[in-house]
Amino acid sequence: MLSFVNDYCEGAHPEILRRLGENNFKKMPGYGEDAICASAKEKIRAAFACPDAEVFFLVGGTQTNALVIDSVLERYQGVVAAVSGHINVHESGAIEACGRKILPLPQHDGKLRAEDVRKLCADFYADEAHEHMVFPGMVYISYPTEYGTLYSLAELTALRAVCDEYGMKLFLDGARLGYGLAAGELSPADVARLCDVFYVGGTKVGALFGEAVVFKKACAPAHFPTLYKRRGAMLAKGWLLGLQFDALFTDGLYFKIAQNAIDAAARIKAALKEKGYSFLIDSPTNQIFVVMDNAAAAAFRERVACEVWERPDAAHTALRLVTSWATSEEDVDALIATL
Amino acid sequence: MLSFVNDYCEGAHPEILRRLGENNFKKMPGYGEDAICASAKEKIRAAFACPDAEVFFLVGGTQTNALVIDSVLERYQGVVAAVSGHINVHESGAIEACGRKILPLPQHDGKLRAEDVRKLCADFYADEAHEHMVFPGMVYISYPTEYGTLYSLAELTALRAVCDEYGMKLFLDGARLGYGLAAGELSPADVARLCDVFYVGGTKVGALFGEAVVFKKACAPAHFPTLYKRRGAMLAKGWLLGLQFDALFTDGLYFKIAQNAIDAAARIKAALKEKGYSFLIDSPTNQIFVVMDNAAAAAFRERVACEVWERPDAAHTALRLVTSWATSEEDVDALIATL
Amino acid sequence: MLSFVNDYCEGAHPEILRRLGENNFKKMPGYGEDAICASAKEKIRAAFACPDAEVFFLVGGTQTNALVIDSVLERYQGVVAAVSGHINVHESGAIEACGRKILPLPQHDGKLRAEDVRKLCADFYADEAHEHMVFPGMVYISYPTEYGTLYSLAELTALRAVCDEYGMKLFLDGARLGYGLAAGELSPADVARLCDVFYVGGTKVGALFGEAVVFKKACAPAHFPTLYKRRGAMLAKGWLLGLQFDALFTDGLYFKIAQNAIDAAARIKAALKEKGYSFLIDSPTNQIFVVMDNAAAAAFRERVACEVWERPDAAHTALRLVTSWATSEEDVDALIATL
Amino acid sequence: MLSFVNDYCEGAHPEILRRLGENNFKKMPGYGEDAICASAKEKIRAAFACPDAEVFFLVGGTQTNALVIDSVLERYQGVVAAVSGHINVHESGAIEACGRKILPLPQHDGKLRAEDVRKLCADFYADEAHEHMVFPGMVYISYPTEYGTLYSLAELTALRAVCDEYGMKLFLDGARLGYGLAAGELSPADVARLCDVFYVGGTKVGALFGEAVVFKKACAPAHFPTLYKRRGAMLAKGWLLGLQFDALFTDGLYFKIAQNAIDAAARIKAALKEKGYSFLIDSPTNQIFVVMDNAAAAAFRERVACEVWERPDAAHTALRLVTSWATSEEDVDALIATL
Repeated sequence: MLSFVNDYCEGAHPEILRRLGENNFKKMPGYGEDAICASAKEKIRAAFACPDAEVFFLVGGTQTNALVIDSVLERYQGVVAAVSGHINVHESGAIEACGRKILPLPQHDGKLRAEDVRKLCADFYADEAHEHMVFPGMVYISYPTEYGTLYSLAELTALRAVCDEYGMKLFLDGARLGYGLAAGELSPADVARLCDVFYVGGTKVGALFGEAVVFKKACAPAHFPTLYKRRGAMLAKGWLLGLQFDALFTDGLYFKIAQNAIDAAARIKAALKEKGYSFLIDSPTNQIFVVMDNAAAAAFRERVACEVWERPDAAHTALRLVTSWATSEEDVDALIATL
Repeated sequence: MLSFVNDYCEGAHPEILRRLGENNFKKMPGYGEDAICASAKEKIRAAFACPDAEVFFLVGGTQTNALVIDSVLERYQGVVAAVSGHINVHESGAIEACGRKILPLPQHDGKLRAEDVRKLCADFYADEAHEHMVFPGMVYISYPTEYGTLYSLAELTALRAVCDEYGMKLFLDGARLGYGLAAGELSPADVARLCDVFYVGGTKVGALFGEAVVFKKACAPAHFPTLYKRRGAMLAKGWLLGLQFDALFTDGLYFKIAQNAIDAAARIKAALKEKGYSFLIDSPTNQIFVVMDNAAAAAFRERVACEVWERPDAAHTALRLVTSWATSEEDVDALIATL
Repeated sequence: MLSFVNDYCEGAHPEILRRLGENNFKKMPGYGEDAICASAKEKIRAAFACPDAEVFFLVGGTQTNALVIDSVLERYQGVVAAVSGHINVHESGAIEACGRKILPLPQHDGKLRAEDVRKLCADFYADEAHEHMVFPGMVYISYPTEYGTLYSLAELTALRAVCDEYGMKLFLDGARLGYGLAAGELSPADVARLCDVFYVGGTKVGALFGEAVVFKKACAPAHFPTLYKRRGAMLAKGWLLGLQFDALFTDGLYFKIAQNAIDAAARIKAALKEKGYSFLIDSPTNQIFVVMDNAAAAAFRERVACEVWERPDAAHTALRLVTSWATSEEDVDALIATL
Repeated sequence: MLSFVNDYCEGAHPEILRRLGENNFKKMPGYGEDAICASAKEKIRAAFACPDAEVFFLVGGTQTNALVIDSVLERYQGVVAAVSGHINVHESGAIEACGRKILPLPQHDGKLRAEDVRKLCADFYADEAHEHMVFPGMVYISYPTEYGTLYSLAELTALRAVCDEYGMKLFLDGARLGYGLAAGELSPADVARLCDVFYVGGTKVGALFGEAVVFKKACAPAHFPTLYKRRGAMLAKGWLLGLQFDALFTDGLYFKIAQNAIDAAARIKAALKEKGYSFLIDSPTNQIFVVMDNAAAAAFRERVACEVWERPDAAHTALRLVTSWATSEEDVDALIATL
């Protein structure tokens, strides 16, 4: 059966497996203190045009979100996020497990609006009792969002402005950053310039696992390796992370394979549109939220594995189709042929 | 240069890489809910003769220690450990970061003594103020210990007895469990029978990364996957862990490659003894703590990469040499030739 | 100037001060293990008709909320609360500081609706990804709410029912419980029967400080004194808490002085109504939310200290007037005279 | 029966009760934002000659220790303490509950030695793996110690020096500070000059409850009230704390009543010596650790309530007798008469 369930069901780009085999019996220093990690960090700094940034490699997204938020915030601060933000819904309370409160705001196609953030901050500081409340200390966004949508340059600039007004850090969850950069108007340099900290997702964009966190110099926590060791996030064979990111950031591989997902999604969306289907959300990235009547959806799911996202009304089903770095032209053809 | 620095400087057993390549483009369910994980769990239950146990796969040792201890203990309890226990020294406070206190006891060649544990418990409950103290709720041991030593069957049985007397859980950190089983008198079934929870180390015994936690049925925490998701320890591509343990527990591979490290260490120890060197600790496993005069040690380290463990007196240096599943006969020969 | 700012601006009922003086030089056992505490607990069990309950005394409300929630919930669970719930707004993140997530629901005059809770639970368990989310483990309500409103017997019974359906605990924050019981239809026995745990507020109802937590037997955490010592909440001179509650629960003093606040509020509300003022919320307890045009409100606040609650529109101000156990008839007369 | 069990079994100095009565019906601002608190803070700053310090009032000792340690330390740091330190033994794991590790060192009559601290730090930074360990970030001492002993000016100066060498904060737990100042060579100004943060114990020195924390300006955490609200330590009627400290620091009352305990203890010790008894520890403060043969100890305890401290050998018992601000001459006479 065809599968468009998610973008982390395959292993890794073959180049990564090739390099794993090549290095398997080299004796490497532990904990990421090796030359491949150093090289990968340098390539990431170059790709994002942030030569002074500090780069660290972690294993997974929830781990990264919790560590960044806990390490950067002061103890009296919490993190502003859309109610639909991954940290607020699907991380089993990982942020709260670090003692930090999420300050939720409405989502608009999965996005935060700068004016909502500004109002939250203005109300907070206007409240005489605010010392009894959790200070807004950071804004968390995901790019692309959980709905596959993207912030425009103007939107991200507006969020940066409100962060500056209220002394907050801006943190971008880039679990699918490659797909966002391939589809959206933000360049890598824009991301690095406008955010205080962000991460470059590997798990969903060609790596077996791994996320590269990039702290702007002024935002980098002291002794971050000790902090992530303390949370059980340090990999003994840290070079496994470096190797994967070094492969992905050699000759633009990361951006190329991300583009593959976007192109595949575009073809599928065009075919769906042609067939008259509508969409729950107009997502420009690698997630497609197509609405079918219930019978059509059920029939479709017998041929194509995919998630039921929600039921917009009693007669309709919204399905989520996800493409990835690994989606083949053949699979796209086959999917379109089933329509 | 030869290297005997540690047992996690190489990648993985080639069979693991082979299977990775084989499965790379199969579309797998996420989060360890796949057939390979199920198979690996079954093989581990069989190998340790604990058919009712619950098995979970995690990425690293500190993560596993913190999660097990936090999940099993009640909030008013702490964990008894040797002062030299990994959790007490080299985990950056990961146990305390979960809110749990370590109750340290003296180490004897890296081991806890049952009578010391019994005295701690007896004193605790005899103390009228014990409600103001941290209750001993678990005993943590490592097997092999941080000094490469092993508990005898009698010693582990004695620890089990004191745990039963005082209602404590017995937790065995098996980061190097393969080496312990290859060298010691405990069988896998003994470990599973005497402990409430233990883990089977993969990172140091042939895997790229990964630890398999085994909870006896009565000790398994409810919703453990939610608990480890909450600590950022859930791998999106959980099948990577299952695949590695499935390979390691097929045809006894885990035990065979562990034996390689023990055989290599035995040859090296014999050669060192023959040359008249003494040992800081009489370790039967894959860590050798050889004492040389300072000049000899310095000369040795120019040819063989290894850790300075400590300086027993002003004139001598104790070096740690570590063999592994990957140590080749050629490297052992070359090492011996340098002596 | 007259003051109706809040219900915790005075000290304690004179009977408490009298007994303090009487006992000041008696040498008392520490940590609440004294006869006065035992007596006070017995009187509370009698007053709430819960002879098997376990009663503990703590110092303040936020402390009590955090301790109860952290002690009763499993690590994979969070607490459902109205967005306006005290724990969600004015406790500086105390619940999250214990590692627990608040699952917020809309408030209706400050209250949770059983059907909203049921929908949250139904959606949660229907979600295939719910192991990646925070389980609803407890429902938190305040009685009276932060808006001075009260649950009816039917409403509380409905919440109890949904808790039973989904295996959740029901926790009632009774910081102002006396005022709720004096004004509402729930009897003390109803509260004890329908909730798993609740507390009897002293700080706002006649004590210098202190909250009496009542756990139904099945819900009482093991070693709760150790748990509250661990959070720094154990009072060395625990008898100070017992003495205050013993005084308050002798001859129904607690209920009598709570009635005073309700009677005073009723008189003020009647006078305000007569003068044609409207109310933001129809609160039956000791908090009055009166709406005045801005000029009238400003003039009023020159004679009567009180909080600006909110500004319902550009021309109007809602003021909060609070009566208490200590409000004198003279002050009520004087307030009415200013209208 | 006579009682010398501890120094917190009575209520408060009568002047405190008098002022409580006097202020009981004054309507006071909440949360310590009142004039009495401001006055008390000013008096403490004057008494300790630290005009720039920030002073806060908390309810109890364990709460204060946990809050200070958690607020001042960075996340990668722990606190060095004597194994016998209150935080390491009798606080139910309160420090670890905040995520902080205690780094224990041997005690010498209850005291830390500067050279032990220096060695710990030197070893730590010399260890190549120290990023995997908990950084020493603070030194905790109690004055008097749990054994009633005192640091000399030279000893405290030496601890200050090692803190400066290694960038650590020095925190003095002054639960019994009054007694230490009355008996020892340190002046209040010495304490404030040499420590980064300390607290002035009220609970054991004349108050119903309360500890005054004094942060040197450079060490004061931002938004400390929010931090202690977050830990449930903010008293609604904060003026109760201010009032007690204002009374204690008016006309040197704190120092006078502390002297009473020291004088009473001196008389008792002299009488015990005259009768030929020996002492377990030579404590200069208000705790006396007298050794009697078992029969004599048992007989003594029938007339005088006191704690059995330990059993130095099979034939002897060490009893702890504690005097306080409230110990009367008559009680001392009666005790001596029993000998």
